[in-house]
Amino acid sequence: MRMPNKPLSKGKERFIEQLGERGLIEIIVNKFNANANRRIVTVGAGEDDCAVIDIDSARGERKYLVVTTDTVQESTHLPEGISPFQIGWTAAAVNLSDVAAMGARPFAFTVAMGIPEHTETSFVKEVVEGIEKCASAYHTAVVGGDITRSKELILTGTCLGFADRPVRRAGARVDDLVCVTGSLGNAALGMNLIKRFRDTEIKVPVKVEEIAKKALFQPLPRIREGIALADSGLVTSMIDISDGLAISLAELAKSSGVGFEIYEDKVPVLSEELRTAEAFDLSSIGVERRALASYGGDYELLFTINIDANGLERMSETIEMSVIGKVTPHEAGIYFKKGEEKEKIELVGYQHF
Amino acid sequence: MRMPNKPLSKGKERFIEQLGERGLIEIIVNKFNANANRRIVTVGAGEDDCAVIDIDSARGERKYLVVTTDTVQESTHLPEGISPFQIGWTAAAVNLSDVAAMGARPFAFTVAMGIPEHTETSFVKEVVEGIEKCASAYHTAVVGGDITRSKELILTGTCLGFADRPVRRAGARVDDLVCVTGSLGNAALGMNLIKRFRDTEIKVPVKVEEIAKKALFQPLPRIREGIALADSGLVTSMIDISDGLAISLAELAKSSGVGFEIYEDKVPVLSEELRTAEAFDLSSIGVERRALASYGGDYELLFTINIDANGLERMSETIEMSVIGKVTPHEAGIYFKKGEEKEKIELVGYQHF
Repeated sequence: MRMPNKPLSKGKERFIEQLGERGLIEIIVNKFNANANRRIVTVGAGEDDCAVIDIDSARGERKYLVVTTDTVQESTHLPEGISPFQIGWTAAAVNLSDVAAMGARPFAFTVAMGIPEHTETSFVKEVVEGIEKCASAYHTAVVGGDITRSKELILTGTCLGFADRPVRRAGARVDDLVCVTGSLGNAALGMNLIKRFRDTEIKVPVKVEEIAKKALFQPLPRIREGIALADSGLVTSMIDISDGLAISLAELAKSSGVGFEIYEDKVPVLSEELRTAEAFDLSSIGVERRALASYGGDYELLFTINIDANGLERMSETIEMSVIGKVTPHEAGIYFKKGEEKEKIELVGYQHF
Repeated sequence: MRMPNKPLSKGKERFIEQLGERGLIEIIVNKFNANANRRIVTVGAGEDDCAVIDIDSARGERKYLVVTTDTVQESTHLPEGISPFQIGWTAAAVNLSDVAAMGARPFAFTVAMGIPEHTETSFVKEVVEGIEKCASAYHTAVVGGDITRSKELILTGTCLGFADRPVRRAGARVDDLVCVTGSLGNAALGMNLIKRFRDTEIKVPVKVEEIAKKALFQPLPRIREGIALADSGLVTSMIDISDGLAISLAELAKSSGVGFEIYEDKVPVLSEELRTAEAFDLSSIGVERRALASYGGDYELLFTINIDANGLERMSETIEMSVIGKVTPHEAGIYFKKGEEKEKIELVGYQHF
């Protein structure tokens, strides 16, 4: 972490190279420290060589520290049309989602930003605003950062959380129920609206486009749900669905040494607001298959749970969730069932290399 | 963090795109988890959505968690001729040095790697080896990571540590002594050997070149010294000298609201092994000025201390350190004194933008 050393910038500099590194840091640091809880964050972003956190105030009674790091980058991760605010939001959200998948409560976030030389100051300010707004929406302080000049925009976040009983990917047992939070395929629809359908005859209502793009551009990590699921003590394994349902199922299966039978028509495809947005036949554009397999970006939680019907009903009152299948022995593999048809799922999803 | 999903790679693939993301992760994860202390690291790199650390086992009695993040990047931070192993080492070392500057004990490290598509697998393995070796040399477990495809090599590390009494940049008081660990200018000499002197008549002995380049390519964070200084209870402020002495003095001065009087001939220029390497007049290439001001890269600690002559003698027995000046009132500014000459120091040092 580097310290600001220049007098307060008046913010009139259009490009960051006019502002200088220290002027830029000052703007960023002021934004990040505005909401830090000073009982927990003793030393915040840009204030010293490291941030300092009072462990006992931050952890409460929780026994485990969790940590994850994840990068978003212009050329690889950022869909066309995303705003600077949403880029920042996404950089925080993808990390928070990993913390959610452990059933942990996030409390601190750091971000290293690689920024191309000729970037407008207002662009950086909006990215920073997006990071800060996403983090603080989940009661997480941005406690540190770093900026470097790079060839393309690249944001690496690291998120810290506390958990009492972290939920692993390993732990699913045969006959557990398989569930997801929320609904799938919203971000995939957004991506298709941008890419595949743009120059075709397929036109969707403006409201559908808005909602789908929001799902794609500004994902909502399931922090509250992750904590509630972990606290229930009934969840046996959990993962977030950043790279699509099929790949997450394969990862849970491998870690837990189990198979899955998934009822295709139970998979909650598209959020209610999308399905009811306007009279529009979404099935015409094949969203179901995409929700199941190809593109991720929904950041819902996939989990297995050992629960009876009563317990399930109670849990569904506080958490938006769907039972989509059950855990089977490892030898059975992963199957999607639709009526009497069974389809074996192979590993599909995004790989960076 | 992403999980490996492919069967064990046989390591025969020359380029990472042949290996695939999951094969690459598997190699990395195996390396990182080899030395993890399983009492502390419950869930290690690549094993789940987050790493999980048992706080009480890791912290001992220490009250504060410290966290820092720092990036090294091909085009900006890496000197010509650095090996892949040393690139990895440096990525860990620059973060560990920030932890050292708080007087904290590091315990966990995460690294996000942006890697160009057409990179040899052996190159990545050596980078990873360098990260792991540096971290484990300082009893730090690499607990998490991320890889993405990027236009140039970019490594963002995040380091976590624990401290009982973190030493701030603020805290220096008038009449405290100003000290540095080790010696300065070694890395600057290495940089000059690569850049400025390459095509000139200045030739240095091979041994000098080796030592100077090692200082530049493989910096040693002062973890042990940072902890001992913090534990003494006598150190009033501390910072690491990543960007040169002058800039670090300016930062301490600003944070503490003080000035400094530095005795130029007390600044330990070049390590003993460099000064005595062979009969060679190093002053001919102007290393002194460079050690004071221009290029950083030494990663020594600069600190202020409230101590008497006896205490100083005892401390010097266990820590390689030099008194280089004293703290003055803020109004006095920062001066370098050489005999009767006084020179006011302006802020000089590396800025990324």
